[in-house]
Amino acid sequence: MPKVTEDYKEKRRVEILKKAEAVFIEKGFSHTTMTDIVNATGLSRGGLYHYFSNTDELYQAIIHEKDKSAEEYFNQLLDGFETAWEGLDTYLNEVEKALINSSTSFASVNLEYFIIGRHAEGRRDFISERYKQAIGHFTKLLGKGVEQGEFKPIQPVDAIANYLINIVDSMHIQLLVIDKEQSYISEQIEGVRIYLKRVLGKG
Amino acid sequence: MPKVTEDYKEKRRVEILKKAEAVFIEKGFSHTTMTDIVNATGLSRGGLYHYFSNTDELYQAIIHEKDKSAEEYFNQLLDGFETAWEGLDTYLNEVEKALINSSTSFASVNLEYFIIGRHAEGRRDFISERYKQAIGHFTKLLGKGVEQGEFKPIQPVDAIANYLINIVDSMHIQLLVIDKEQSYISEQIEGVRIYLKRVLGKG
Repeated sequence: MPKVTEDYKEKRRVEILKKAEAVFIEKGFSHTTMTDIVNATGLSRGGLYHYFSNTDELYQAIIHEKDKSAEEYFNQLLDGFETAWEGLDTYLNEVEKALINSSTSFASVNLEYFIIGRHAEGRRDFISERYKQAIGHFTKLLGKGVEQGEFKPIQPVDAIANYLINIVDSMHIQLLVIDKEQSYISEQIEGVRIYLKRVLGKG
Repeated sequence: MPKVTEDYKEKRRVEILKKAEAVFIEKGFSHTTMTDIVNATGLSRGGLYHYFSNTDELYQAIIHEKDKSAEEYFNQLLDGFETAWEGLDTYLNEVEKALINSSTSFASVNLEYFIIGRHAEGRRDFISERYKQAIGHFTKLLGKGVEQGEFKPIQPVDAIANYLINIVDSMHIQLLVIDKEQSYISEQIEGVRIYLKRVLGKG
């Protein structure tokens, strides 16, 4: 029997998460069963349960992977550019592209998980924790600009970070119900840029 | 037997909707049954079904009432002030108050109805129709300012209206999971004002 290495197990785990993500997007979180995941992965039932016990665990593991990527991504935005504005601007360009090009979005799954779980203490904490992580990424990036004397914010940096996350999230939600052509995504992203320049004392 | 007038029936109908709204907020849309509404209203089962056949009908009737009020409200913003900016500013003040003071919000019910129904053609149309109505109110108000030479927008008025609705909606959603004290509502509303002044060529 071949030795099952940690590395092999981790790869298999990530593969399962990718398949599960696609199923969640297609069927929605609450309509997805463990049997759907068994079918999508081609694993045996026991094989799947070796890794995950329920869809809640799968969802949270997907988010954990996404958070790791987000962490890396924001570190690049923070360190990969000379100015904080270049980092912010790159972020907005990439969000715009993602919103315009992607036909399927995990946003609906997040929203569903969130709205169904809003009364469940554990889920509320999980979601609120993630929100605060996202705020943290942006306050870091904005803070860099303040330190370098590049930004002279006329509002608290935390408030600006909140606003930024909210307006971007709301576009993800809008696209779930309004056609892209009627959603003015590029103009709204430009609107965020206009807001940021003003509130960061850049013009 | 007393004559049941149309007026009486309409009053009874609106009373049912108020009670139903409270139940939806408390239990969430998908966990509310017609039996819950029977209990909340004190009507007999037959009495309730005389007015509404299911919770979907109840929800849509509540929204219809809210839309009527919104229509009146926006007409006041449009006609009750000399400048369009005063109308917009009043709107933002009132949204701020509503977000800070209300402990219970229909936003969660709307979001739930929306997220559950995102794959159902009929619901998607219903939601998208309402979104467009809201856009219409703001484009009218912004258009008044343009006509009067008060606003010189640097972006399409429709895009600004989209943005405005998105950022306000997102604050309603944020409050479902983040405590008010950590949500920077007043600062974000001020952020919307800063954005609007800039994008409308007011400073």
